[in-house]
Amino acid sequence: MHPQIVVAIGLVAAFCTTVSFIPQAVKTIRTRNTSGISLGMYVLFTTGTLFWFIYGLLSHSLPVTLANGITLIFAGIVLFYKIRYH
Amino acid sequence: MHPQIVVAIGLVAAFCTTVSFIPQAVKTIRTRNTSGISLGMYVLFTTGTLFWFIYGLLSHSLPVTLANGITLIFAGIVLFYKIRYH
Repeated sequence: MHPQIVVAIGLVAAFCTTVSFIPQAVKTIRTRNTSGISLGMYVLFTTGTLFWFIYGLLSHSLPVTLANGITLIFAGIVLFYKIRYH
Repeated sequence: MHPQIVVAIGLVAAFCTTVSFIPQAVKTIRTRNTSGISLGMYVLFTTGTLFWFIYGLLSHSLPVTLANGITLIFAGIVLFYKIRYH
């Protein structure tokens, strides 16, 4: 398969997984309903995203740093609301 | 910083973000409470994870393929319950 198609698939993947936490953050801010949300997931996921962010910085990878920096903000918002409003 | 420390940080990141969806899938299966969960997030995230999985296969990267294959299963379970039980 043409290398540029593979790169395009990677970019679509990165875009989707990065922006996916925005609708969750918006819903959580609006409803403050975090009952169905797993605290364990968001502690693990936010920790993992923070490590990816640090990994991106240390390996001088702008895509990894940028994507995980954005995800960290929105996943962090959901984690904050989950801790604050149970 | 020593290259092996950077690799270790990447492995911790991959582990955390991969397994993080397991507690959410378990909670969702147990409670069927998906009211606080964003459908938009899980449609986007599952799509993105599927693209990462395909990207991993096409670029012959076992870590990317394996991590996203596992995440796809558990994020897919949450998406199924969200669609099925609103």
